[in-house]
Amino acid sequence: MIQTVYIIGIGLIGGSLAKDIKKSRPDITIHGIDTSAQHLNEALELGIIDEKTTVEAIDKADLIILSTPVDAAVKLLPMLLDRVSDFGLVVDVGSTKSEICKVANAHAKRRNFLAMHPIAGTEFSGPKAAVANLFQQKTNIVCEIEKTAFKLQEKALNLFASLGMRMRYMHPESHDKHIAYMSHLSHISAFMLGKTVIEKEKNERDIFDMAGSGFESTVRLAKSSPAMWTPIFKQNKDNVIETLQEYISNLTHFKTLLESDDFEGVYKEMDETNYIKQILNGIQ
Amino acid sequence: MIQTVYIIGIGLIGGSLAKDIKKSRPDITIHGIDTSAQHLNEALELGIIDEKTTVEAIDKADLIILSTPVDAAVKLLPMLLDRVSDFGLVVDVGSTKSEICKVANAHAKRRNFLAMHPIAGTEFSGPKAAVANLFQQKTNIVCEIEKTAFKLQEKALNLFASLGMRMRYMHPESHDKHIAYMSHLSHISAFMLGKTVIEKEKNERDIFDMAGSGFESTVRLAKSSPAMWTPIFKQNKDNVIETLQEYISNLTHFKTLLESDDFEGVYKEMDETNYIKQILNGIQ
Repeated sequence: MIQTVYIIGIGLIGGSLAKDIKKSRPDITIHGIDTSAQHLNEALELGIIDEKTTVEAIDKADLIILSTPVDAAVKLLPMLLDRVSDFGLVVDVGSTKSEICKVANAHAKRRNFLAMHPIAGTEFSGPKAAVANLFQQKTNIVCEIEKTAFKLQEKALNLFASLGMRMRYMHPESHDKHIAYMSHLSHISAFMLGKTVIEKEKNERDIFDMAGSGFESTVRLAKSSPAMWTPIFKQNKDNVIETLQEYISNLTHFKTLLESDDFEGVYKEMDETNYIKQILNGIQ
Repeated sequence: MIQTVYIIGIGLIGGSLAKDIKKSRPDITIHGIDTSAQHLNEALELGIIDEKTTVEAIDKADLIILSTPVDAAVKLLPMLLDRVSDFGLVVDVGSTKSEICKVANAHAKRRNFLAMHPIAGTEFSGPKAAVANLFQQKTNIVCEIEKTAFKLQEKALNLFASLGMRMRYMHPESHDKHIAYMSHLSHISAFMLGKTVIEKEKNERDIFDMAGSGFESTVRLAKSSPAMWTPIFKQNKDNVIETLQEYISNLTHFKTLLESDDFEGVYKEMDETNYIKQILNGIQ
């Protein structure tokens, strides 16, 4: 039975996991580790963690959740695996999976590691952004499950299933390729929409009175944390560039249709993309 | 006092206006006109309109709301102004304002017309998409108010204010320039995001399990009606092309930063765009 959980990085995801674990299993003690003393104190005051601790103590953990930005995660992992007990498991929850799996695969204690990506979140960050029930009915991508010790994967996946996650098993490279389309591109699309509008309208503040719910929804992800997203784009650079190239090419084609007064073509582009309705209904 | 309202085009906007007018002023009779007999019957069954009618009867209207797609609106307006009584007012609620104002300005009964754009909506269409309280605390852009007969503007704006709308006065060309950034670009951004993802993932349906709330929010507007949006892009072509050019240029710059491993630059782009938080908070 998992009794002691250490969470490294008490932000939106780490903090939300802490909240739900505590709710599902009140007997578990949650220990928090964070490079920000302020975040760690906030997490303690908010009751998200039971105790503050440091990486030196992680040999006492049954489960270590690595929920830092993905560049910190790949740097920390070897040291964490060095220190974890034979009965402990390190789980990472980052948005990229290839690089962390490579690092894990090079370590003698690969069996004590599980790579996963719960597809859940908001545009906010830090312990105050932690919310209960964030993972209810959400997909959790699990990579290279066969490389994790059987008893450890069973304990961990039972716990995560109790938070409402639906497990999907995928190769890390497939994960990174597809998540570039399904998540990373949305973020760049929103950031550049925000940039385009801010640049144009910076001298006319009243103009933002014209922002409706459509703009708000489309630009929402542009509120996301650059400290979290820069290392994701770095690690998944090749896939992200590919999606961006296709997105730019589709936008350029749409512009060409407008320029050449081909409004039948414009209609057709939108009509065909309305198919997204069925897809989104399918996932709800 | 307005007693008789005719609504031409009983969809999302026309239907939502009908609902709120009825709630605010139960004494008003709402007459519906639509090219779709099915939509008109639905509107009657849903209690959105009190009676079905035709344009031949509009001389009896105190207020005529023109809420068709914008290409139909510019075609219908001269005939409506020909027929409207001296004490009646035609109001258009489309997403483009320059072309309709030009048509109105060429008509002898310009005083019986008011151009406005309530910035409210959802991605759905038709009478079933009509919702109550859609206009509460929403901006309503009013163009060339000085060209409308004083008594007629007063009656109409009092009614629309009673639905919760906040009036903003703007020149039609300024409206079309700014709305291209604040609304039209968001729609193209979402449609092309949807297209890019559908094209890539069409043979792998399971992949949509990876869609999180971020993708859903960013792509939401790609569910919008092509019949409504094609004529908007046509009428506002020049402004829309300009916004698209800037958006594509910003995306291309972001891609170049990734390709040249300039992750400080990538961070800076996102950090600066986070400023959208303050703007969005400011408009709420």
